This record gives sequence, structure tokens and C-alpha cells, in this order.
Amino acid sequence: MKVAIIGVGLTKFGELWDSSFSQIFVEAGINALKDANIEGKDLEAIFVGNMSGGRFVDQEHVSGLIADHAGLNPLPSTRIEAACASGGLALRQGIMSILSGFHDVVVAGGVEKMTDVLTGQTTHTLATAADSEWETFLGTTFPGLYAMMARKHMEEFGTTREQMAMVAVKNHANARHNPYAQYPFEITVDDVLNSPMVADPLRLLDCSPITDGAACVILASEKRAKEFTDSPVYITGSGQASGTISLHSRKRLSVVDSTINASREAYKRAGLGPKDIQVAEVHDAFTIGEILGIEGLGFVEIGAGGKATEDGITQIGGKIPVNTSGGLKAKGHPVGATGVAQAVEITLQLRGEAKGRQTDADIGLTHNVGGSGGTAVVHTYEKG
Amino acid sequence: MKVAIIGVGLTKFGELWDSSFSQIFVEAGINALKDANIEGKDLEAIFVGNMSGGRFVDQEHVSGLIADHAGLNPLPSTRIEAACASGGLALRQGIMSILSGFHDVVVAGGVEKMTDVLTGQTTHTLATAADSEWETFLGTTFPGLYAMMARKHMEEFGTTREQMAMVAVKNHANARHNPYAQYPFEITVDDVLNSPMVADPLRLLDCSPITDGAACVILASEKRAKEFTDSPVYITGSGQASGTISLHSRKRLSVVDSTINASREAYKRAGLGPKDIQVAEVHDAFTIGEILGIEGLGFVEIGAGGKATEDGITQIGGKIPVNTSGGLKAKGHPVGATGVAQAVEITLQLRGEAKGRQTDADIGLTHNVGGSGGTAVVHTYEKG
Repeated sequence: MKVAIIGVGLTKFGELWDSSFSQIFVEAGINALKDANIEGKDLEAIFVGNMSGGRFVDQEHVSGLIADHAGLNPLPSTRIEAACASGGLALRQGIMSILSGFHDVVVAGGVEKMTDVLTGQTTHTLATAADSEWETFLGTTFPGLYAMMARKHMEEFGTTREQMAMVAVKNHANARHNPYAQYPFEITVDDVLNSPMVADPLRLLDCSPITDGAACVILASEKRAKEFTDSPVYITGSGQASGTISLHSRKRLSVVDSTINASREAYKRAGLGPKDIQVAEVHDAFTIGEILGIEGLGFVEIGAGGKATEDGITQIGGKIPVNTSGGLKAKGHPVGATGVAQAVEITLQLRGEAKGRQTDADIGLTHNVGGSGGTAVVHTYEKG
Repeated sequence: MKVAIIGVGLTKFGELWDSSFSQIFVEAGINALKDANIEGKDLEAIFVGNMSGGRFVDQEHVSGLIADHAGLNPLPSTRIEAACASGGLALRQGIMSILSGFHDVVVAGGVEKMTDVLTGQTTHTLATAADSEWETFLGTTFPGLYAMMARKHMEEFGTTREQMAMVAVKNHANARHNPYAQYPFEITVDDVLNSPMVADPLRLLDCSPITDGAACVILASEKRAKEFTDSPVYITGSGQASGTISLHSRKRLSVVDSTINASREAYKRAGLGPKDIQVAEVHDAFTIGEILGIEGLGFVEIGAGGKATEDGITQIGGKIPVNTSGGLKAKGHPVGATGVAQAVEITLQLRGEAKGRQTDADIGLTHNVGGSGGTAVVHTYEKG
């Protein structure tokens, strides 16, 4: 399979109190159109990843809202939701829409506006990504779920608190070079270890923040892409898998099956393997998430993610740079937008436009997780 | 285009207080698998239409939940949302997933659990299908929006209160023969005209009810369909369009542009026109909705829908029977499920299995609307 990314756009990630939900999507979309050097009239459809407009901003039917507010009626516009994997699935539906022959040029974007509600409501809304009847109703929060996975990983594989902290330290260091990042400043391992406890063993600086933001990519069929650009980035693999939504149903807490299954499908479609990947954006909603991610994606053996992080292989300049954008941890995590923002970063890397955080890469990967692993979606990218 | 429906399944529509959200989806899915004479292991993906799990049952990430509770991990599972058009769009994404070559056999379903919340919350949640900042925040409800459209239609075209009532009378009469319908009993024009006022001129019996329910269809590629059935129904056209989400932005309140645009695309893909359609399920969330629908779909001229209803052309035995299932009005309207339930009814009609409500039809159509017309999706169906 081969679908081109011909343009990318982001908003600043952060607390965007001066912009509405639809405004930030439209801003990212306009940036992507400019980058592609095309106009709204060249688009044939809109795919929107959004986790919870209904709860965060009292708005469902966000696909229709966005088409209207963007002045793009009567373009078909479709919202896709799978918690924090909503963006990655919007991208996948956009790809399918092109490969099916329905469309040639579409925008796949994601958006979340998370800072306009009370904090308790935000935490509870994020917890609706878990099993409401079996987990959330009993008081579980997302840091709590990932804390259990972290504790099990430490017990089973000897992963240390310091190794988890190093994920945050690396991602904050990368974010310094990303003008769109929410927290572009350096932190130290001690900063992480001394930050307030959220859910033992995870501390504040192990957790991604609450973020407003949007991201868009313009997708084109291989045939039409050549009309618009000489330097397309191709999406060559796509994989999606479901896993148990509740932790209590899982055979092992220390392994995320959906990541393994989604990456297998993506690698197979692309004719690639983990060793071919030169740069990756990995779902680090919590520091342990990146460690579980690089293991599930096959970059390192299961259980070896903590040690690999300590050894520096995921740093820029390392064997497989991970989260050059700053990741969810430091770039910010507007949940519905995250999966698309990952595709934006890999596109910039493969085009050689990542400036201070540039790596030497022709093949990249994105890994987007919904909930504690109930959904995972993986895409591979190759320089055209 | 050509994608086969090889199985269909419903739950009873109504107040399903003994079943959970995921249980009802799984029940409809099992019914569809039985109808197709296949098993869960034959499926390759799940597409779920759902408007507001987040607000109705405190559950986002319903795609992951359903895959897990159905025992279908690691199948990819994707939720699609566009208010009351969520089901129709889930069907369309399922079709695209097959035509793209990603999958050969998928389930496209829809589900909504609306009766487990307080009434005020239900009305407010349904209103999140409108523009929250410009309509809902100011107190608009959905009956209010459709009431304005009805009033304008009466003023502009001379449509009468009695003609709107006749939509409800017809659909309730049809529902008597549908064992899955929520309200399978006859009503009279006087019953409608004497029912409590909801939003002038719409009365209680002009409005579809609050409903729990789920619907599923099993889709297969043309090639694989032959392995499973000798009597497939083919989906031959699919169209989707966005319209202004707010009524105040509309040039005319008495015409729904998104229906016109979506049906044009569907007819074009199918090589059909409105005169070819022999049976249709049309989005009658309110009685005026069916009148606007049959006009926008081209079954009658713009403005002629009231008179056409009075003349009986949309009755069983008429020129173009509409809502043989009982429609949203009498079958019930579990919002995320509705678009798929429409496909179930047309499949039964084309297979000759609609019993007491059977029409003589080889070609059918479904018309599913989100909000007051912010989204419309139309599909055409032909007997294999």
C-alpha cells in the first residue's frame, strides 16, 4: 500500500483559552493546506479524530461542525473515536478512503480541547477510555492503570524508577527544539523522582499533560500526489488491533498485546520489520508507556525497554530515536490530535525539516494507543 | 461499486433496562452472524456507529469495549460518530474498508443506550448534535430546531399539520408488522393532533422516541460473498455530505442541502436515479423530517412532500413505500444504531423476508441524517 502525505499542519499545543474547539482544528487544517500548497476546494473529504467533544466541550457531531466552520460544506466529514488512538484511526480511515477509490485528496486530522472544563471532569472523562462498568465506576483513573502496569514491569523485568524517569528527561530535551511543544524545557532525573506522586510509582513528571491542540495531514493517492509535490512522504503500512480494555482481563500486565498485533500488521503491509525503522513516535502518555511501546513494536526484546532507554538507544543520535517531537510527555497530549501529530513529526523528519531535532532517517513509524491498550494503531512512513 | 450484505441482526428496540451497552451490540452482532451463517472468527474488522456513549453511559472508546466484550480481540474495531447519522457512516466506513482491499468480511453496526440517564440529560445530549456554542448553549433542543423547519415548510409550501401527522400514522401502521419495533401500534391523525405540544407545531406523536437498541450488518467483498450466500443484497451506491450545522447559517430552512448532495453522490455511484428506488427508509426523527427527506432524495419535487404523503404514495402499496420498518418514529430511534437498522430493513425487503410489511422491490435506499442536516448519508441496495 502507498498513500502520500503532501502537507502537514499543527497548532501550538498548550492551554489555548483564546480559541474554540473548531477554531483550532481549522487553524491546523489551514497550516496543512498551506504546507501542501493547495486550497480547501482541492479536498474531497475530512476525517476527524476526537475523543470526547461530548464531555469536554458539550459538542458531539464535531465532524459536521468542523466542515461547516471551515467553510468546506458539502464535503463529507467523519469523526473517528478510540480514546487516545482517535487520531491514528482517523489517519487509517483517511487512507482507506483513498485506497477504496472513493477519494484522491483528503484531510485527516485530530483535535481535543481539554482545558475548558474542571479538572475532576477531565480526569473522569479520560477514564471513560477504560471499562466504565468494571474499572472507572470503581474509581480507577488512567495514571492508576498505568501505575499497575509500571509496577508489574519493575517486578518482572527489573525496570527501575530511574529508567522510567529517563524517558521524560529525553522527551523534554527533544521538545526544546519543537516550537509547537507545550513544555519545551529540560528536566532532570531528580526532577522526575522528586515531583509529586500521582499513582505509585508514577509521579507528575511521568505523566503527559492536559492539552488543547490540533494536527492535520493532507493525504493524496499516489497518482495525484505527483501533481502537488516532488517530495511526498508515503504511508506504506497500517496496522490496528484491539486488546482487552480492562487490565483484569489481561494475561500479562507487563505486555501490551494490541501494540504487538498492530505493528505486525503494519510491518507486513509495508514489507518492513522493526530493524528497518529509523525514527519513531511512540505513545508515551506515561513514561512506562514508551518502554512498553518500544518493546511491543519490536525495537527491543520484551522486558529490555528500561535498560535500552538507559543505554541511550532511543535518544537522537541513538540506534532508534524515539519521540523527537517531545512525545506526548513534553509536546503535549490533546488526546484526539495525538495520533495525527505523530504523523506530522515523522513527515517533518523524513523531509529533513525537523531542525534542531533532525535525525538521519528515510523510514519512520508512529504508534498510537487508546486507553491502557484496548486499541493500538501503527503506521510506517517512507521517504518518496 | 458493489459490496454485499450477507447477514443482518437487530435487538428489540425499546427500554432495555436488563442489558448493558455492550451486551446489546453483541446481541445484534450474534444475530447477524447467525443470519450470515458464519462465526466471529470469520470477521476481520468491526465498525461501530455510536453518538454519545460518553454522555449516555459514561463510556468512550466503545469500539475497544465491544471487541473485548464480544470476545473478538485482536480484531480492529473503530467507532464512527456523526450524531444520528453515526450508523450510516459506520456502514460507509465498513464499505470503504472492503473496497480498499484492507478487509473482506466485516461487521458494521450501531448502538445506543439512551434510557439509563435522566431525561433532561438525554435531551441535552441529543442537542450536542447541534452547534453547542451557537444553538445549544442558548437553549435550543432538537424538537425546537425541527419545529422551525416545519413552520417554514408550512408557510412556504402550504404543508399542513394533518399531512405531517399522516407520516406518523403510516409509520405506526407499518411498525405493527415489525417484531423489533418499540411502538408497534396504530395511531390516528387525531391522536397526533391531540398529543401534547413539544415545540409548536410539533407534538409528541410527531417525535421519534428515546430508545435503546443495536443493529448490525455483515459486509463482504463481492468475491467472498459467494462463499457465504446465494442471495446477497448488494450495496451499490454510497453518498455522504455535510451541511450547515446551525439553522441560522442556512439559506433556506425548508430544504436540507446535505440530503440532496448525499443522494446525488449515491445515485451517481450506483448509476441509479430516484425513479429507480422501490422502497426506502428515510430519516423521520420528526414527521417533517420524512417530508423533507422524500423531497431531498428526489422522490417528489421540493415542497410536494406533504401532499405526496396525503396522496399515499409512501404507503406500502404506493409508488415508493417509505419506512416499512415503522421508521424512527415507531420502530424507535437508538441514535447510533438507526442508520444500520435502516440497512437491515432494506435487506429484509429485498430478500423478501419482511413478512406483513413486505413490498415488491429489487432496489432500495436508506437515508440517515445527523443533527438538523449537518450530515446526511445515503446508500442504495440491489438484489443480488
